[in-house]
Amino acid sequence: MLTLHGYWRSGAAYRVRLALHFKGVAFTQVTHDLRRAEHKADSYLGLNPQGMVPTLVTPEGRITQSLAILEWLEETYPTPSLLPSTAIARAEVRAMAATIACDIHPLHNLRVLTALRALGQNEAGVQAWIARWIEAGFRALEPEIAARGGPYAFGRDVTLADCCLIPQVFSAERFGVAMGAFPVLSAAAAAARASAWAQAAHPAHQPDADH
Amino acid sequence: MLTLHGYWRSGAAYRVRLALHFKGVAFTQVTHDLRRAEHKADSYLGLNPQGMVPTLVTPEGRITQSLAILEWLEETYPTPSLLPSTAIARAEVRAMAATIACDIHPLHNLRVLTALRALGQNEAGVQAWIARWIEAGFRALEPEIAARGGPYAFGRDVTLADCCLIPQVFSAERFGVAMGAFPVLSAAAAAARASAWAQAAHPAHQPDADH
Repeated sequence: MLTLHGYWRSGAAYRVRLALHFKGVAFTQVTHDLRRAEHKADSYLGLNPQGMVPTLVTPEGRITQSLAILEWLEETYPTPSLLPSTAIARAEVRAMAATIACDIHPLHNLRVLTALRALGQNEAGVQAWIARWIEAGFRALEPEIAARGGPYAFGRDVTLADCCLIPQVFSAERFGVAMGAFPVLSAAAAAARASAWAQAAHPAHQPDADH
Repeated sequence: MLTLHGYWRSGAAYRVRLALHFKGVAFTQVTHDLRRAEHKADSYLGLNPQGMVPTLVTPEGRITQSLAILEWLEETYPTPSLLPSTAIARAEVRAMAATIACDIHPLHNLRVLTALRALGQNEAGVQAWIARWIEAGFRALEPEIAARGGPYAFGRDVTLADCCLIPQVFSAERFGVAMGAFPVLSAAAAAARASAWAQAAHPAHQPDADH
């Protein structure tokens, strides 16, 4: 049995839940309330020295970093697949995923927003910071997704790109980012999000959701 | 023939050069001077809608995002390999790479430092910001690397983790980050950096290096 250490509203944990539910892999969850700094407790740092979620505990060992977990899930549970059949298409899917996982999400996660506030940024400044990086990434993704023809981020099949896009759109909506300039990206996220596997992974449907 | 669009001092382009030289894959380079915003020129945005380096042009198409390029190189030129032979070990290597590529480097690249200065941060504030995120990541990596026993980041064999670690240590030194707390990480980076393939990939040895 796999155990996912996460938090209902963490975008990176949400990516992993999406892949687990898409593949139909059973798992249990342990929650770490980020607002109460439970991810910085010594007991968790032994599992994840970065003090970040998610961590996946497997029979072979624990894995940190959502991109590494997604690749491990794909290797370990190859069907249904979250990667296309050719190397160039796999690279394009991974590039979409990395655009989100490297160049959008890390710039507006909790620790960075806390650091900005400590530098004297008010809430308007923090909101502008969040929107700036989400919009920059979405502007680049919009034509890439459009080029694939939908309905999902990389065309007809669900991929790792959707596992990263759905949580990023969730965050964008939560932070009030204007989505009007990204109609194709929004439609792709909505198409994937409507699936039963994606609904099961939604933050609001997790046992630790508090609203 | 492969063409790498990059810049001598870009940490992400440096990762790709390391993998190319390690695998002995021939490639040509096209430089885009980030200080003159050449990566934002329309001619380059057609290749890379994010306006970031690197981009690898292959016979099958162009690939953006260094992590996606590294995985493509590993799939396309599997020998010598940059990933271990078991799924859990591959996940651990990818987690090390992602710690750098997601949680360190994107927080101090050129566009972020420019944004911080626009928010009124002086150079001392910018330096503290850079050091904060590099040190947070290195603190997490130090015990992970130590657990593997060296000489490289993941033990006896060079992996994708080294392709990410070498450029990150280069950046840390360039930005004057104190490395005394990371002796094992520093030794691993030094061991890999001393190899001929790593020397060939070093920023100072690129045709566009201007010092």
